[in-house]
Amino acid sequence: MKTPLNSSNLQITKNPSPSRPRPNDQLQFGKTFTDHMLIVEWNANEGWGNPQIKPYGPFSLDPSSVVFHYGFELFEGMKAYRTVDNKITLFRPDKNMKRMNESAARICLPEFDGNELIKLIGKLIELDKHLIPQGEGYSLYIRPTMIGTSETLSVVSPDKALLYVICSPVGPYYKTGFKAVKLEATDYATRAWPGGCGDKKLGANYAPCVLPQLVAAQRGYQQNLWLFGPEKNITEVGTMNAFFVFSNPNTGKNELVTAPLDGTILPGVTRDSILELARKRLDPHRWEINERYCTIFELSEKSKNGELVEAFGSGTAAIVSPIKEIGWKNEKIQVPLSPGEETGPFTKEAAQWILDIQYGKVTQGNWSETVADLN
Amino acid sequence: MKTPLNSSNLQITKNPSPSRPRPNDQLQFGKTFTDHMLIVEWNANEGWGNPQIKPYGPFSLDPSSVVFHYGFELFEGMKAYRTVDNKITLFRPDKNMKRMNESAARICLPEFDGNELIKLIGKLIELDKHLIPQGEGYSLYIRPTMIGTSETLSVVSPDKALLYVICSPVGPYYKTGFKAVKLEATDYATRAWPGGCGDKKLGANYAPCVLPQLVAAQRGYQQNLWLFGPEKNITEVGTMNAFFVFSNPNTGKNELVTAPLDGTILPGVTRDSILELARKRLDPHRWEINERYCTIFELSEKSKNGELVEAFGSGTAAIVSPIKEIGWKNEKIQVPLSPGEETGPFTKEAAQWILDIQYGKVTQGNWSETVADLN
Repeated sequence: MKTPLNSSNLQITKNPSPSRPRPNDQLQFGKTFTDHMLIVEWNANEGWGNPQIKPYGPFSLDPSSVVFHYGFELFEGMKAYRTVDNKITLFRPDKNMKRMNESAARICLPEFDGNELIKLIGKLIELDKHLIPQGEGYSLYIRPTMIGTSETLSVVSPDKALLYVICSPVGPYYKTGFKAVKLEATDYATRAWPGGCGDKKLGANYAPCVLPQLVAAQRGYQQNLWLFGPEKNITEVGTMNAFFVFSNPNTGKNELVTAPLDGTILPGVTRDSILELARKRLDPHRWEINERYCTIFELSEKSKNGELVEAFGSGTAAIVSPIKEIGWKNEKIQVPLSPGEETGPFTKEAAQWILDIQYGKVTQGNWSETVADLN
Repeated sequence: MKTPLNSSNLQITKNPSPSRPRPNDQLQFGKTFTDHMLIVEWNANEGWGNPQIKPYGPFSLDPSSVVFHYGFELFEGMKAYRTVDNKITLFRPDKNMKRMNESAARICLPEFDGNELIKLIGKLIELDKHLIPQGEGYSLYIRPTMIGTSETLSVVSPDKALLYVICSPVGPYYKTGFKAVKLEATDYATRAWPGGCGDKKLGANYAPCVLPQLVAAQRGYQQNLWLFGPEKNITEVGTMNAFFVFSNPNTGKNELVTAPLDGTILPGVTRDSILELARKRLDPHRWEINERYCTIFELSEKSKNGELVEAFGSGTAAIVSPIKEIGWKNEKIQVPLSPGEETGPFTKEAAQWILDIQYGKVTQGNWSETVADLN
């Protein structure tokens, strides 16, 4: 009988030298971490060991560990928010746990009870709650990670793994308000493929995308707009899901469009939240919401016809990232922005929907999970 | 001015407790390692640090290191052989160094002078030469590896990296002679794709292939025969290149076929060696040698017509791995083998060509590089 992940077996070793919170203007994404980390070891014979919270510090790993050779690694990105009523909450953590287990299954790393990991993350956050920055847009970025630690050069299913969680206090992605980006529509490099693993949050999906990003940057673009196939379907933007707002002159409606989850698209929590809220809150007489393929040719055509209204990426780090221009071969596809504005009205509204739920101003089902009450 | 990789800056710290060689029958691939390892640190500001040979032991790495999150990792597989005239040689190490640099460039890890690394590997091997096993098929497996070690959760080009080399004494892949394998032709999972990185030796290419291998194993197959695209082109077998021998009743010739290097195929050193030797040594009146696409449908057809003569995988670990059957949907494509035989004549001959060069019985250009003379 293998031991399941069990939060009640948690062992805590407190950091003897707790740190002071940094001023909000000195927070850097993913560069500084809180005083503690959570680690849980797993092996194929016994299952999950006792979860441990201990001082943040380095791992000691054998050079033959499979994580260094064969890409046995996956992660999640979540945030803890300090709400207006002084609670610490997570935003839809069940979605992250589900995806993390799906990522694990895809590369033969162990699955676990997501509720148990949420409880453990709660304990970890509570211990370092003084380091969670205050203010809208400020939060604690949480990075659950799993790596294969078997010490063998054979390419086999790992018999040892390490699940760990580290946390980084972060400020808003856009410190001085939204900043619309320029993208290079990229067809020479392919982010994901049917039968691959682009819908999982695996390390394997990230390193190969950095070179095309550098190439785009040399050409004056901040990110890639990833195209797929001979049709040149738009799939994702950088490491975010891609959304477009079109106007339809025939129906007089707007259309909100994002790529369907066909196995090449990361099922983003922000993506899902925007879709669900849009379906709930937008007037169906004025809006259509579609998960469908959209090619770069359609985008170009609609831009020329004045039917491209807004474009943005969605993700946990920035919530939304407005797009102002897309370079495609010799063409520059323009996304209209009002003078002096860096974002369109729907993009801004969608971000505010999410922010209001994250900071406890608006309740939306069970999307906010309280992990600590500071009152 | 950034410092290049320089073997003359090598610093050696000897292992105070050298180990004894294990008996040949106790060698396990990639499970036990020699007494020393080579490490070289790199950072974007200064370039390569002083190479160090020191006792084999664990690395200490921050939990935020990019190698754990974003797949910044690559490796090579090489072997050192104890030749019949008592020298220690490497087999075409320049090919591994070239590919390693190409892998590094693809994921924004640093490139280096391959000749310098070969010299350093030579020093490393010489120090542990008593651990290189003796006998045909026995060798020292060498694993050059590079990982990104920047401590950041940002998905950017790493500004710190670690190049290291570890070595494992190994026996022949087939301890009791060749053993032909059964493959499952796999089209539901895709190993590599155009615009991806299947032609580089990145960690990213390996973990996603283990689950399909387990599925194939459950169905009674040892490995996957990876198909690509609607055409169902045969690309690779497991982690090896795929070769077929066909007979052509029209010309009366045999044809040796392997997939072309179109960006989805790993440019295997053994693959290249077999092709080059076949072009040099086989009678052109009796053989055609082609790097061309071959679909699973063609294979099935040729098998039925009696034109499929041999099939094998090629790679550093096994040199060749003969194939006896390929499961494809409800069909079992049979590869003929003489009664009592586990390999066809060309497969066996090609393996012997390579073995004879590796163990110094036959000289082939500059394919063998002597790193130590034990006389």
